[in-house]
Amino acid sequence: MSALPKIGIVGTGRMGANIARRLKDVGYTIAALYDVNRSSCEETARDTGGEITDSLPRVTELSDVIITVVSDDAAMYQIFSGAGALLDGAKGRIFVNCATVTPSVHVDIERVAEAAGAQSLEACMASSIPQARNGTLYLMVGGKREAFERVRPMLEKMSASLKYIGEAGRAAQVKALVNMVMNINTAGLAEGLGLGNALGLDLDMLREVFSQTGANSRVLETDGLDMQNRDHDCYFSAEHAAKDSGIALSLAEDEDLRLPLAQATFEQFELMKRLGLGGLDKSGVSELTFPNRHAQHLTART
Amino acid sequence: MSALPKIGIVGTGRMGANIARRLKDVGYTIAALYDVNRSSCEETARDTGGEITDSLPRVTELSDVIITVVSDDAAMYQIFSGAGALLDGAKGRIFVNCATVTPSVHVDIERVAEAAGAQSLEACMASSIPQARNGTLYLMVGGKREAFERVRPMLEKMSASLKYIGEAGRAAQVKALVNMVMNINTAGLAEGLGLGNALGLDLDMLREVFSQTGANSRVLETDGLDMQNRDHDCYFSAEHAAKDSGIALSLAEDEDLRLPLAQATFEQFELMKRLGLGGLDKSGVSELTFPNRHAQHLTART
Repeated sequence: MSALPKIGIVGTGRMGANIARRLKDVGYTIAALYDVNRSSCEETARDTGGEITDSLPRVTELSDVIITVVSDDAAMYQIFSGAGALLDGAKGRIFVNCATVTPSVHVDIERVAEAAGAQSLEACMASSIPQARNGTLYLMVGGKREAFERVRPMLEKMSASLKYIGEAGRAAQVKALVNMVMNINTAGLAEGLGLGNALGLDLDMLREVFSQTGANSRVLETDGLDMQNRDHDCYFSAEHAAKDSGIALSLAEDEDLRLPLAQATFEQFELMKRLGLGGLDKSGVSELTFPNRHAQHLTART
Repeated sequence: MSALPKIGIVGTGRMGANIARRLKDVGYTIAALYDVNRSSCEETARDTGGEITDSLPRVTELSDVIITVVSDDAAMYQIFSGAGALLDGAKGRIFVNCATVTPSVHVDIERVAEAAGAQSLEACMASSIPQARNGTLYLMVGGKREAFERVRPMLEKMSASLKYIGEAGRAAQVKALVNMVMNINTAGLAEGLGLGNALGLDLDMLREVFSQTGANSRVLETDGLDMQNRDHDCYFSAEHAAKDSGIALSLAEDEDLRLPLAQATFEQFELMKRLGLGGLDKSGVSELTFPNRHAQHLTART
């Protein structure tokens, strides 16, 4: 019998599926797969094995560790609430929740998980699909330290950098701040390149100058050329960017802080959603700031 | 007789004075110094020599190359306009204009300089005081290429990176974009750290996480710790940040582009000016976004 815990995956979207593939590669048994979109389960199962089920308690029954990667706060509450959900028969299990949700959700989930004799952690990912696949995620963990130590060997296989941040909700706060700042820098970069384009500047030159000056940023490296080339294949969608900036803004509201840049950024990604561009990568915010692109989308909608 | 041209400096503020010191160090003769603030001329002259004068034509008379580093568009027009200004007796001289001003100003200055039998260039600096002192500026040049080649040896002594961008106004456009994006990233970082502080997160940890994720930026390196420590000794003032973001916004308006992040950033730096914080370094924008700092300034003003 293997010493490694059996893994269940709830949410086999791009991130969840690639985490499953990675864990399979390094020797873990993927015991169960669950997603409202059954075809994504089937696709994942071809690579990882594991029982495809539409019963959450069945995932819990088959698994020692359940990794959840769902879309939002509501989905988190749903999978953990009441009969027929993950906490049915969950005694001794540990839940590792990877979705970016409102930090207080993790506090609530920890409470109900512990009431059911289980444990829970948040494992917030500040990286994207290739890193999930290769086990090189940047992982920030919140929850009880003892729970963290219990799944640490697995988390180490998923990550290049693993950081225990603090009690439940703390890692999610940091994650929200990372994405808030990243989204601001992205929307700001799109404005710089968009105006440069309007002025007829050579954008290769402009990106090079940005990279060597105070305008440099990680998103310049990851998104600059994509903005120029309108290559918005999705790694991190505009919809997700809107959600994450929204989470940060609600934290700010609770603290009575006014954050005008975060607000303006949120509104840009919300505008993308209204224009039907929410499925583009976040780099697609340049569609709003380059001279002729915006008009195209507005025209297309009216 | 030295083969090196004699240098006049108009504007002996921190940048102008340190450019003068650098050029003196590498063998140039500083022939003339002019500033409306005579004491800054005297301080510079102690290190560089050169005649202190309150006559602009006297600067032109004494110098082969006149470097101007003045505060804004109005000051640029003033020093180049009419009798008693720099173009009196300017035949054969070359003007190297280092201030960050509206790009079209450089086009106007080139025209009047050429009409006076002189040449002009813009040499836009994307770096700060230590780089001016050490001759390691990041310099972007706009104007006629022939004029650029004429002063290239001097510009090379001033810079670690020297880039010819294009015709008059082009370098200033790029500079405006650099500062617009830098200012956005700065104001955005201040929001991230301010909210982190409000949430009680360890800001050393938070900056480290930012540096390793999509939130990373040059301004995180240059301004992050200063924001945390309220160390706002001025390298690049909030006032200048407001001016430069304003230049970029006026370019955007001419192009009929809407840039909400640049606008929100401009408004933050304008708010600093209204609160009497315009003389702080741009990092001081964190005074607006950390939980208890903002209230202090508002209280102090009301």
